[in-house]
Amino acid sequence: MLEHTEFVTTARTPLDRSLATTMLAAALAEARTGLAEGGIPIGAALFSRHGVLLGAGHNRRVQENDASVHAETDAFRRAGRRRDYPECVMVTTLSPCWYCSGLVRQFAIGAVVVGETDNFHGGHEWLAGLGVEVLVLDDPECRRLLAAFIDEQPDLWHEDIGL
Amino acid sequence: MLEHTEFVTTARTPLDRSLATTMLAAALAEARTGLAEGGIPIGAALFSRHGVLLGAGHNRRVQENDASVHAETDAFRRAGRRRDYPECVMVTTLSPCWYCSGLVRQFAIGAVVVGETDNFHGGHEWLAGLGVEVLVLDDPECRRLLAAFIDEQPDLWHEDIGL
Repeated sequence: MLEHTEFVTTARTPLDRSLATTMLAAALAEARTGLAEGGIPIGAALFSRHGVLLGAGHNRRVQENDASVHAETDAFRRAGRRRDYPECVMVTTLSPCWYCSGLVRQFAIGAVVVGETDNFHGGHEWLAGLGVEVLVLDDPECRRLLAAFIDEQPDLWHEDIGL
Repeated sequence: MLEHTEFVTTARTPLDRSLATTMLAAALAEARTGLAEGGIPIGAALFSRHGVLLGAGHNRRVQENDASVHAETDAFRRAGRRRDYPECVMVTTLSPCWYCSGLVRQFAIGAVVVGETDNFHGGHEWLAGLGVEVLVLDDPECRRLLAAFIDEQPDLWHEDIGL
């Protein structure tokens, strides 16, 4: 009976979609902040699986003239030095590019919540195949915000994804 | 005849091993600087294929208390915003982790020179399978420097690779 209880306690409950949607709002707010700063509107946030915000960030290529700061790497940095990544959720407004998907794999971040995959299709399926829990929310506002930016500034967008 | 000439002109010459060894010295110097600063001794540099140094960097987890700054991402950042990555070479003292391998893939960096793959085996074979030119130099000094650090500070090393 004790063994059964332990199993129940340590088994991972799938991410709650409602909680994931609330988390995505934090990433979307970051994307809007980036746009207001004149930057590329992609946002991300690192949360605990229970919904505690650990760090939030956005793409800063334009603002800091820094090619290395994607939304996910910014959120990761702002979450500080950690040892609990398997219990964390990376939430991002856009399918993570290979750079950011590699970050998730290397640090064994346990779950990824993706706002949309239409404007860019990165490594989220690769991560799912490696055992990362991936939840795509197919959010129309994430899609609309970035699509409008790509339409207005295609060169900057292509620079950011290496095309 | 013109078509033949164009083919010869645009065909890529394989990386010269002697030039790659010279490039690796710049990355190794960065690793030593990192160690002298109290950090993790991994260094990297981004070069043009012809050997022009574009940016050099090293792991700054300890120095800047920043989990996102691996040697390769530091070198990438310091090379500025570019559009010529396919013509660049990422040189690193250690097999690139998944985070840094993802960086190479996303930005289509054309070649990777690796100092050693014994202390850590990252994504260099994955990159080679994707068509990136990968040259492993199997350098004993790169190996010795990091092995000594791992022996002295295993916790810091494990933190840096997410274990």
